[in-house]
Amino acid sequence: MCEANAYLRQEGKEEMFMEMVDKVTPGEDGLVLEDIFGRRKIIKARIAELALVDHRIILEKQE
Amino acid sequence: MCEANAYLRQEGKEEMFMEMVDKVTPGEDGLVLEDIFGRRKIIKARIAELALVDHRIILEKQE
Repeated sequence: MCEANAYLRQEGKEEMFMEMVDKVTPGEDGLVLEDIFGRRKIIKARIAELALVDHRIILEKQE
Repeated sequence: MCEANAYLRQEGKEEMFMEMVDKVTPGEDGLVLEDIFGRRKIIKARIAELALVDHRIILEKQE
């Protein structure tokens, strides 16, 4: 499976936001992240960076 | 390997932009996409959507 972990980057630090993310889609209230089990989290952020072979998605908060 | 294919979405259509993408990072001239062989492409776009289990990155042009 090629899911990735989503990290929130703030002030140079990265914090785990959600594990085993499959889909990231834009929604009305922000980005909708969905993991491989169908669980969802919403965050006002943008996708800043990807490193897929390392299974990493980097998010940055958006006002 | 968990690379993905990057598609450019324009007017509802999706066109292949780059195959086997590993890294996507923001650069001065736009997004820098790097495939698993280290080849690079730059495009003025944003990451609109991800579907990692399907190996898909959707880009949208940015002016």
